[in-house]
Amino acid sequence: MAKRVLIIGAGAIGIFYGALLAKAGAEVSVVCRSDYEHAKQHGFIIDSHTLGRWHFTPAHVLKNAADFDGEADYILLCTKVVPTLDRAALIRPAVTKNTAIVFIQNGVEIEQEMQDAFPDNEVVSGLAFICCNRVSPGEILHLAYGRLVLGNLPSGISDKIAQLSELFNQTGISCKTTDNIITGRWQKCVWNAPFNPLSVLSGGLPTLDILQTQEAFVRSIMQEVCDIAAAVGHPLPAGSVNINIDNTYAMPPYKTSMLLDFERGQPMETEVILGNALRAAQRVGVAVPHLESVYALMKLRELQLELG
Amino acid sequence: MAKRVLIIGAGAIGIFYGALLAKAGAEVSVVCRSDYEHAKQHGFIIDSHTLGRWHFTPAHVLKNAADFDGEADYILLCTKVVPTLDRAALIRPAVTKNTAIVFIQNGVEIEQEMQDAFPDNEVVSGLAFICCNRVSPGEILHLAYGRLVLGNLPSGISDKIAQLSELFNQTGISCKTTDNIITGRWQKCVWNAPFNPLSVLSGGLPTLDILQTQEAFVRSIMQEVCDIAAAVGHPLPAGSVNINIDNTYAMPPYKTSMLLDFERGQPMETEVILGNALRAAQRVGVAVPHLESVYALMKLRELQLELG
Repeated sequence: MAKRVLIIGAGAIGIFYGALLAKAGAEVSVVCRSDYEHAKQHGFIIDSHTLGRWHFTPAHVLKNAADFDGEADYILLCTKVVPTLDRAALIRPAVTKNTAIVFIQNGVEIEQEMQDAFPDNEVVSGLAFICCNRVSPGEILHLAYGRLVLGNLPSGISDKIAQLSELFNQTGISCKTTDNIITGRWQKCVWNAPFNPLSVLSGGLPTLDILQTQEAFVRSIMQEVCDIAAAVGHPLPAGSVNINIDNTYAMPPYKTSMLLDFERGQPMETEVILGNALRAAQRVGVAVPHLESVYALMKLRELQLELG
Repeated sequence: MAKRVLIIGAGAIGIFYGALLAKAGAEVSVVCRSDYEHAKQHGFIIDSHTLGRWHFTPAHVLKNAADFDGEADYILLCTKVVPTLDRAALIRPAVTKNTAIVFIQNGVEIEQEMQDAFPDNEVVSGLAFICCNRVSPGEILHLAYGRLVLGNLPSGISDKIAQLSELFNQTGISCKTTDNIITGRWQKCVWNAPFNPLSVLSGGLPTLDILQTQEAFVRSIMQEVCDIAAAVGHPLPAGSVNINIDNTYAMPPYKTSMLLDFERGQPMETEVILGNALRAAQRVGVAVPHLESVYALMKLRELQLELG
């Protein structure tokens, strides 16, 4: 029987991965707020540089999770993580006993909230390494990458998640499972913590300009994230900073997701990327003065945007 | 005989102090680039909230220091200090044997360059605590404060500077002399190092918003400046950070000079306020990670402005 999947958060990432699962034979419905009418009438176009162009018609297009009828095998929560959005409340109406809750979202230390909210469900933490954009209502452009990593919380890999991973792998993207997804989140934070805020605070520089002129500063922030990860019990492999630096030099100049949010006037993931890392550092008594500075400046930048 | 004064750098500060000295009976000429025609024809209007409104007609309005005829008792150099401007070259054509060179400028460690360039002249470092703006060509608005501090380099107070100070005091502003002007510069930097860059990097917040939301961060930067000052042999009084914090809470919300430069698209004094402090820290081996972060971000912001 086809797996039933409900996507909540119909941005580029949610629609892209939902469309892949539909391709692989799952019954995929979508909760869609801003583009509801368009999506209901036309579905979505996925234009992928690596996987081709195809049309994705969700099984159901819904305005709210409460409108979902029946039992979802998987809920994929793919919204941004911002303080104004209550992740648990957003999905709760659609969660049933056998639903595995999979969040594919940015940030560190975002697990506990979901584990606390759904103690009797399988809760899965996911990371997407992808470059894709919503270019118009109903059209998603997939530029590069696409790799997924999934892991059960607090650890391990359930059969259900192995099956989901298998589904994704059938579609042509790589999905790996890990019994240490928390470490994976810190690893992603090593890159996000410098490049996301620096792209915004610089007024819009792409990654390469940042790196070429302020490599030492970028390294300091990266090292502080590694220090926190080690102190909270998730040490990253030696050389993590060097690898991230080398990879970024090898990437084409790139606009970070935080910069895109900033340019669109949308809320930024400052708290889950920087704030949560900083609070973890304070909890375990690790000094992170560069991260602290970048966070303080992002809060000032956000305050100025708010005051106008 | 009236003292002969040449003002170089006809911005708000140069014209304001020049106009005061003219009021006190000095013969004051002005080197004026952008507003030359206007100044030659109309002179300057000074509109001061504390000292009234008056007209200042310079003895001579000149396009370049080379056009100055005769011997200046004092050259007052009042430009911004930015890497594109060669301070010594700017004044050299007007410097004669008996000229005292007085720079009233922002920043730390800006003395040696002038002492090296004019080893046989009296070189005087000056600090202005003032809030004034050029509101149109030829019109200077003096909003508040105005206190000057002058001190000979490397130290001491010459008769000539005592006389200049006396002239200023006759005009209704307070001018003090000090035999430790270097310490005074570091003291001013305690305030400038956080508020100037934070106002720019936040996207334009006034001082009070910065302080009310990020006091701990502001304090960290201030403390680092105190640490550098102590390490380079100019320890600041205990409580310097607290005094600066308290004073800023008591001030009306204020747009920093760096923010005004930023908004006008003019070069900012990043190097003399932050870069020189940071280089001093590196020289003496003091860790200043917050200052380092703020400097790196200002360099990125400037790069973005340059790339457009």
